[in-house]
Amino acid sequence: MSPDFDAVDIIRTKRDRGTLSGEQIDWTIDAYTRGTIADEQMSALNMAILLNGMSRPEISRWTTAMISSGERMDFPSLGKATVDKHSTGGVGDKITLPLAPLVAVYGVAVPQLSGRGLGHTGGTLDKLESIPGWQASLSNEQMMSQLSDVGAVICAAGSGLAPADKKLYALRDVTGTVESIPLIASSIMSKKIAEGTGSLVLDVKVGSGAFMKDEESARELAETMVALGQDAGVKTVALMTNMETPLGLTAGNAIEVEESVQVLAGEGPEDVVELTVRLAEEMLAAAGVPDADPAAALKDGRAMDVWRRMIAAQGGDPDAQLPVARESETIYAPADGVLVGLDALSVGVAAWRLGAGRARKEDQVQAGAGVRMHAKPGAVVRSGEPLMTMLTDDASRFDRAREALADAVVIAAEGARPAQRLIIDRIA
Amino acid sequence: MSPDFDAVDIIRTKRDRGTLSGEQIDWTIDAYTRGTIADEQMSALNMAILLNGMSRPEISRWTTAMISSGERMDFPSLGKATVDKHSTGGVGDKITLPLAPLVAVYGVAVPQLSGRGLGHTGGTLDKLESIPGWQASLSNEQMMSQLSDVGAVICAAGSGLAPADKKLYALRDVTGTVESIPLIASSIMSKKIAEGTGSLVLDVKVGSGAFMKDEESARELAETMVALGQDAGVKTVALMTNMETPLGLTAGNAIEVEESVQVLAGEGPEDVVELTVRLAEEMLAAAGVPDADPAAALKDGRAMDVWRRMIAAQGGDPDAQLPVARESETIYAPADGVLVGLDALSVGVAAWRLGAGRARKEDQVQAGAGVRMHAKPGAVVRSGEPLMTMLTDDASRFDRAREALADAVVIAAEGARPAQRLIIDRIA
Repeated sequence: MSPDFDAVDIIRTKRDRGTLSGEQIDWTIDAYTRGTIADEQMSALNMAILLNGMSRPEISRWTTAMISSGERMDFPSLGKATVDKHSTGGVGDKITLPLAPLVAVYGVAVPQLSGRGLGHTGGTLDKLESIPGWQASLSNEQMMSQLSDVGAVICAAGSGLAPADKKLYALRDVTGTVESIPLIASSIMSKKIAEGTGSLVLDVKVGSGAFMKDEESARELAETMVALGQDAGVKTVALMTNMETPLGLTAGNAIEVEESVQVLAGEGPEDVVELTVRLAEEMLAAAGVPDADPAAALKDGRAMDVWRRMIAAQGGDPDAQLPVARESETIYAPADGVLVGLDALSVGVAAWRLGAGRARKEDQVQAGAGVRMHAKPGAVVRSGEPLMTMLTDDASRFDRAREALADAVVIAAEGARPAQRLIIDRIA
Repeated sequence: MSPDFDAVDIIRTKRDRGTLSGEQIDWTIDAYTRGTIADEQMSALNMAILLNGMSRPEISRWTTAMISSGERMDFPSLGKATVDKHSTGGVGDKITLPLAPLVAVYGVAVPQLSGRGLGHTGGTLDKLESIPGWQASLSNEQMMSQLSDVGAVICAAGSGLAPADKKLYALRDVTGTVESIPLIASSIMSKKIAEGTGSLVLDVKVGSGAFMKDEESARELAETMVALGQDAGVKTVALMTNMETPLGLTAGNAIEVEESVQVLAGEGPEDVVELTVRLAEEMLAAAGVPDADPAAALKDGRAMDVWRRMIAAQGGDPDAQLPVARESETIYAPADGVLVGLDALSVGVAAWRLGAGRARKEDQVQAGAGVRMHAKPGAVVRSGEPLMTMLTDDASRFDRAREALADAVVIAAEGARPAQRLIIDRIA
C-alpha cells in the first residue's frame, strides 16, 4: 500500500518531537498489524507519543489507519437511524443497560458493542452476564436482525473491527502506555467509527473513579474524540460527567442489573435516572428525534418492554432470579452528620476485590459480588446507621475490601453540602 | 534475589518522572536478563529513560546491576597493574593499536576488550583482522596468559561479561533508544568495570564524526562515566577530544593498521602520535607509572617490539603484506587555498560505503577499503592536487562514496587557519 518506511526513523521522529506524515502513520499501523513492526518498536513509539503528544492531524490519521486495519459494519442497510453511546468508564456506571432500550423505544437502532471490565471499572458485558442464559457474543447477522426487530443490542465487539486497536491496546496495557490522550481517543473512536454508527454520544467521566482525574484532561479527551468523530462524518457529542462518587447505589454486576431494572420500572436512584434521560435526549437529538420525552418512556413501561425483548433475544430470562452473593458484611456510619464524600475509586476497588472485577483478562468475575450503598453524598446520617454492604461469595475477601473503603467516606457537620454536579459540560 | 516488582509500575514511575529505587533497578535488569520483563516493556522503559533521564544514583545502580548480570574478569591475579582505554568512537580512530603495546612497554597490563564497527565508525577488531592470521577471539585463559607474557591484548569481549548490556544494546538499536546519555554511560561502564581493570582512561569524542556532536553532551557523558567508574572503585579519567575531522590520514581497516605501524616506528601523522602519547601518559599515571616518556618508547622501537609479539601471540604475522583494495579513485582540490575543513562524518560515511564498515552486524567488511587523505586541515593546497583517494574492491561503490564526500572539504583563502584543538578538556 504505502511506501516502505523504517520503524527506527519513525520512532526517532516522534522521540525528537517531530510530526509524522500521513503516509508514515498509515505504514506504521499497517506494518504493526502485519507484524513487520515488532512489539518492542511499537511500545517505544507509544511511549514517545505518550510523552511528546501527537497533533490533531496525526491523531486523525492514526484513527483512520486503525479503522482501515479491519472490517466496517454496515448499519445503513438497516434503513434506520443508528446511534451509539460510549462511556470512558466509571464505578457503578450501568447507564448503558436502561439507556439502549430507552432510545430504541423511538425507532432508532442502538448497536452497543461493549467490553468487559478490567481493574476497578466494571464492564457492561460482565453485568449482563449475571442474567441467567444471556449471551454476549452474536454473529453480525444475529446483531443486524436484533437491531431490526428489537432496535437495541448490547453485545461483544467482533474481532474483525479495528484489529490494529486490539493488538495495540493489549500492548499498551503491559507497557505503561495506556494513559495517553491521543492513544485513548484514537482507540475508542476507531472502534466506534468502524461500527458505522450514524451518530455517537460520549460520556467522558471525570473524577477519582474515572480514567481522567481532572477536568482539564477530560476536556482534552472529549474535544479530541468529538473532533475525530466529526472528521469521520459521525455526528459526535460529548458530556463530561462527574465520577467522584459512584453512579447510583450499587457497584457490582447482578446488583447493577437490579438497579437498572428499577430505573426501567420508573424508579431507581435519581442520578442514574438523570444521566440516563439526559444521554437519551442527546442520542435522540443526534439521531433526528429531537422532541422525544424519554423520562415518560421510563415511567410508562415502554423502555421496560424493549429491555425484556432485548434480553430475551440474546437468550436471557428477564424474569429470572439474579444471583445473590453468599456472604455480606455491612459498614456503619462512624458519626452523625452529612455524608459529603463517598469516593468512587475506593468503592470501585472494594467491589473489584470482593470479586466483581478482574485483575487479568482471563479472570472470572462473581455475579453477586459488589458494594451496595445505603446513602449518597448529601444524605444526613446518624452514627451506627448502615452506610454500605459488601457482598461476595468468599468471606476472606472482606478484609482487603474494607481496607479499600477505609478513607472512602467523609462525614461533615450538619448543614454542610457536598459539591455535586452530575453533568459538568457538553462538548459538541 | 530482590523482591518481586511489577514491570508496568516501574515503567510508569519513570514515565511520570519518578525515581526508581535500587531494588527496583536490580529487579528490572535481572528480570530482563531472565526474560521476565519482555522486550516491549524494556523498550518502553528505555524510551521513558531517554526522554525523562535518570539521576546519578539511578545510573550507578543500573550499571552495577548490569555488571551483576554476568561474570567478572580476575585481573588482580596477574599481579600487575591493569589499565584500559575506551573511545566512544570516531573516524580514523586507530589509537588503540599503537597505544596498547606502548603502555605495555612499562610493565602494565593492558586488556583491551574491543568491538566491531557499526555504521560510519570503525571497529578496532575489524582493523586488526586485516592482518593475515590474526584472531580476535581468545579464551579467558589465553587472554590472561598473553597479558602475563606480552602485557597487551586486544580481543573480542566474551559473551559472559554484562550479558544484560548485550541484550539491552541490541534492543536499543532497533527501538530508537540508543541516544540516551544514562544508557550509553551505563552500557560502556558496565562492560569496562566487569573487565575488572584497575584504572580506565576514556576518550570521549566530540564533533561531526562522533556520537556526541556538541561539547555539552560530550561533557555530560564524560562526567557521568567518570563518576560511575569512581563509584565502582575504578580510577577513571576522561579526555574530551576533537572529532570534527578524522584522526590521521586514513579511515578504513588495513590502511589504519599501516598508519598505526608507522606510529609504532616513530613516524606517522602528528595528531595520531599526539593523542597516542597523551593517552599513554594518562594510562600510565593512572596505573602508577607517572614519570614514563612514551614518546621515547615510540621512537626507540620498544613499543614496536610489544606490538609484534602481541600480533604474533594472536596468530597474526606482523611482517605480512596487508590487503590492498583492487580499485582506487582520487579526489582533487577544486581551488587554491588553505584546507580549513575536512568533515569527519563525511569521510566516515564514505569509508563505510566503500566497504570498510557494515550496516548490519552480519555484514562482512573489506580489509582494503577506505579513504586515504593527502592533506589535513591547516595544509595549503593547490587546485588539482590530490586531496583524498577512495579505495574499494568494488568500483560500483565510488559514486555513493563520492556523494558522501561532496561537502566534506572546505578551502579558504590563504592565511586562514582552521580551528584546531585536539584535546578539548580533561575530566577526572
